[in-house]
Amino acid sequence: MDQLVVTLDCPDRPGIVHAITGAIVAVGGNITELQQFSSPDTGHFFTRVAVDAQDRVALERAVVDATAGFDAHLRVDDANRPVRTLLLASKAGHAMNDLLFRRQGGELPIDVVRIMANHEVLSPMAAFYGVDFESHAVTPETKPDFEARVRQVVEDEGIELVVLARYMQILSPELCDFLAWRAINIHHSFLPGFKGANPYRQAHTRGVKLIGATAHFVTSDLDEGPIIEQNVVRVDHTMNVAKLMRKGQAQESQTLAEAVRLFAEHRVLADGDRTVIFR
Amino acid sequence: MDQLVVTLDCPDRPGIVHAITGAIVAVGGNITELQQFSSPDTGHFFTRVAVDAQDRVALERAVVDATAGFDAHLRVDDANRPVRTLLLASKAGHAMNDLLFRRQGGELPIDVVRIMANHEVLSPMAAFYGVDFESHAVTPETKPDFEARVRQVVEDEGIELVVLARYMQILSPELCDFLAWRAINIHHSFLPGFKGANPYRQAHTRGVKLIGATAHFVTSDLDEGPIIEQNVVRVDHTMNVAKLMRKGQAQESQTLAEAVRLFAEHRVLADGDRTVIFR
Amino acid sequence: MDQLVVTLDCPDRPGIVHAITGAIVAVGGNITELQQFSSPDTGHFFTRVAVDAQDRVALERAVVDATAGFDAHLRVDDANRPVRTLLLASKAGHAMNDLLFRRQGGELPIDVVRIMANHEVLSPMAAFYGVDFESHAVTPETKPDFEARVRQVVEDEGIELVVLARYMQILSPELCDFLAWRAINIHHSFLPGFKGANPYRQAHTRGVKLIGATAHFVTSDLDEGPIIEQNVVRVDHTMNVAKLMRKGQAQESQTLAEAVRLFAEHRVLADGDRTVIFR
Amino acid sequence: MDQLVVTLDCPDRPGIVHAITGAIVAVGGNITELQQFSSPDTGHFFTRVAVDAQDRVALERAVVDATAGFDAHLRVDDANRPVRTLLLASKAGHAMNDLLFRRQGGELPIDVVRIMANHEVLSPMAAFYGVDFESHAVTPETKPDFEARVRQVVEDEGIELVVLARYMQILSPELCDFLAWRAINIHHSFLPGFKGANPYRQAHTRGVKLIGATAHFVTSDLDEGPIIEQNVVRVDHTMNVAKLMRKGQAQESQTLAEAVRLFAEHRVLADGDRTVIFR
Repeated sequence: MDQLVVTLDCPDRPGIVHAITGAIVAVGGNITELQQFSSPDTGHFFTRVAVDAQDRVALERAVVDATAGFDAHLRVDDANRPVRTLLLASKAGHAMNDLLFRRQGGELPIDVVRIMANHEVLSPMAAFYGVDFESHAVTPETKPDFEARVRQVVEDEGIELVVLARYMQILSPELCDFLAWRAINIHHSFLPGFKGANPYRQAHTRGVKLIGATAHFVTSDLDEGPIIEQNVVRVDHTMNVAKLMRKGQAQESQTLAEAVRLFAEHRVLADGDRTVIFR
Repeated sequence: MDQLVVTLDCPDRPGIVHAITGAIVAVGGNITELQQFSSPDTGHFFTRVAVDAQDRVALERAVVDATAGFDAHLRVDDANRPVRTLLLASKAGHAMNDLLFRRQGGELPIDVVRIMANHEVLSPMAAFYGVDFESHAVTPETKPDFEARVRQVVEDEGIELVVLARYMQILSPELCDFLAWRAINIHHSFLPGFKGANPYRQAHTRGVKLIGATAHFVTSDLDEGPIIEQNVVRVDHTMNVAKLMRKGQAQESQTLAEAVRLFAEHRVLADGDRTVIFR
Repeated sequence: MDQLVVTLDCPDRPGIVHAITGAIVAVGGNITELQQFSSPDTGHFFTRVAVDAQDRVALERAVVDATAGFDAHLRVDDANRPVRTLLLASKAGHAMNDLLFRRQGGELPIDVVRIMANHEVLSPMAAFYGVDFESHAVTPETKPDFEARVRQVVEDEGIELVVLARYMQILSPELCDFLAWRAINIHHSFLPGFKGANPYRQAHTRGVKLIGATAHFVTSDLDEGPIIEQNVVRVDHTMNVAKLMRKGQAQESQTLAEAVRLFAEHRVLADGDRTVIFR
Repeated sequence: MDQLVVTLDCPDRPGIVHAITGAIVAVGGNITELQQFSSPDTGHFFTRVAVDAQDRVALERAVVDATAGFDAHLRVDDANRPVRTLLLASKAGHAMNDLLFRRQGGELPIDVVRIMANHEVLSPMAAFYGVDFESHAVTPETKPDFEARVRQVVEDEGIELVVLARYMQILSPELCDFLAWRAINIHHSFLPGFKGANPYRQAHTRGVKLIGATAHFVTSDLDEGPIIEQNVVRVDHTMNVAKLMRKGQAQESQTLAEAVRLFAEHRVLADGDRTVIFR
């Protein structure tokens, strides 16, 4: 038996769960996990079903047929197939180190195909983890070339997920649109507080008692993308900006890794500008 | 349309979800929430389904019929019917105050039918919240009488849930058995650490850096009942036992209230000695 | 021996701690707790010293003399004297109930002298806790009268702390200035996110994964006052605005109570627009 | 000016803080941080003072002289001198990776002199971070040799701190005594719950709703050593032992790193069987 994952969303109508479960029974599948949500805001229905079954293709065909009248958007995937992932990085290595270490330990179902950075400094770490690494100086002049290269890698390598692991450049609106709902960024604050640059400095100035990190999908509207995961940690008046930064890095790494895991396990669905997360 | 809740558990077999959802479709019901879990430890299946439907009795009959071969234990209840609840208390009023205040604000779907205490001191609070209150001196000699009175109230009043809101007496094994899976206690530590008396003193002696509270079902095996909810809060070396106690009380109240809410919303199911919680 | 608390701030200069401790030794006092902080941002020094000593007046005189050259702002207070407090409230009673219950249990060193509200509804709760209550209809026309009454109560009753326990009206700039650094508000979001009205609605729209509460000093710049305490709690996509609200109320009550405790124990000092908190 | 740290403990007597601050003033030092604690349980006094001063030796002499009558145990150290550290490891690399990465980034003031392991598998990671690595098969027969080698390294290399970064062997009572108050272990549960082997399995069996990690000093009384730091994370009924393990690893790494930082910054003092932590 294979472990498969069905994700499906459609306008909410009675009978949809029964239709899906019928298709699963019909191919001899066994449901091991089922979550569903009907959004009162958008009138949309979402589900994620983990199924033990013989044949991915047969299950997919059965679900497609059973939900034919529901105008559904669906996917049936192998639960253990690692998601093809591209990392973008700059100089700070904590988030990237954490992702690569967890992937190596089998904790994250991703296949890190390549790392692209705008600095050389993380090259040895990439080498240690055995991941292809390329660095490019990204200036206003060369940015279009860099972004063209990102697009090319995404297309040539069949990239399903792009992770901005503290990549410190703003992507162009065109690239954001190209990567819609498949690029995850980690912002080093508890959004919507402290958007933009230097959030730790802003947090220090404001004197907050907790700082946080937010993993969200990349959109052209900076720091406004749909939120996947957030965490906070307690701070106090004695901490200067550098200390807030150090304190926050563990949150950043952990929050990003959790968001990547949720995405790679097909637990994140799009509900307008918000996410539905099936943990 | 009424808001109904189906809870069901049975030995895990393929087709059970499809059978239930079929029954719901058949009576024109609409699923608004569905959670399920198959326990690898006990081979048992659990589900909770929230349904908008016309007729509770019709839905119940349909689900009973549809799951006839599955050896299922099931219940179909009105989601908005408050659970008939008896509180046991002693002198400390924080947990009881919290429950009564939340109930009054409509936050907890319970109907507090009566408070029974082994002291007089909480009588004015009961009066303020308009709940019948009776106090009994509980000594080794009178304990059987008190417990007989508890049984009588449970039976005469149709009590579905007994909450020990910092009731500082140990129930007899017989009463524990009588109240199995329908009596919730709050223990003022993070179980299984610091069982028994004076957990805050034990925590101080051990020098822990977090203290907690545990809401669990009452069993005759003291402090070993199935856990429903737990919370912790950070403490430090400067705090003496009295300060730990004050610090912990907010956790106690909140943890107990959350456990009561989960129970009253039919979100707690029994899996051997453990709980399945559908949040 | 009395338990006294010295709080002092001054421009940072070597020798200040030695000067203060010298004064304490000179009057035969014993230090039981000492905290200090030098702010790199403002070059200011802050300390809080708990002292067991015979005579508050003698200690105050000694500290004043010893720190004569330091341009210090200082106070020597009895640690066990409850702070004279005025509550402002509207219709929601959770924060007020929590404060009154904790005060009654001896957890908060405050003396709630009076409650002023713009609705009648909390009158029975005030009566139950034995606190004077007055309600006033607050309209644009009557607001100046209400605020004049607040000032009068503050002055006549020697009020040291005003707590806005979910008081749903904006105070005038004049009253904010009058109450500077002695009025605490609870905002039902994790500031600086979701300022202004309906923060739970804003949080729902933005799809955040944690919601919070912020206790801060009242200033004429709405929701921008110095932060004293913050807390968060995890939420998810299934929660509508009403559920976020219920979920957030426990955080609000707890965060406000903690801020009031810190203030009443003289643990909150002013460092420009930020707070120094000596826990 | 150098940044120095004075730590001192002695039987509690009036005048001790004044004596220390006098010595600091006498050598022209400036206090930047001061914390103190008088333990009501042991009648002992503890302090940690961060001082900007010209000369470590002069400051030490001044403090020794000033506190001559107090029967004090004291140390004056350079705040920026990294603590000489030996890591013990087995096969799991998460805690070790985290420590080495944080040290490399300047977050932990330690100098990892050597890694000793009872398996080869972490050798490449040690090489990547440029730390000497030696592995030894540890059997009942060879354990005395291994422990003799540990002692030798500690003595020859001037090791100040031994960190058991998920080292899965029990140290002999003799080695525990030899390393008293200078060896830190990470236990993968929220002690005192789930002592001994397989804490995640125990946690699963008991059905707890939070799991945790505890960093403590090593003593011959297994899992009973003084606690330095603890953290927890929420879990639920769906998580099997393997998932609890993965979920817990981030807590383990973070809790151990925090304990090591506290130790290396001289923020951990011994109060009987408990720790005083000056954060």
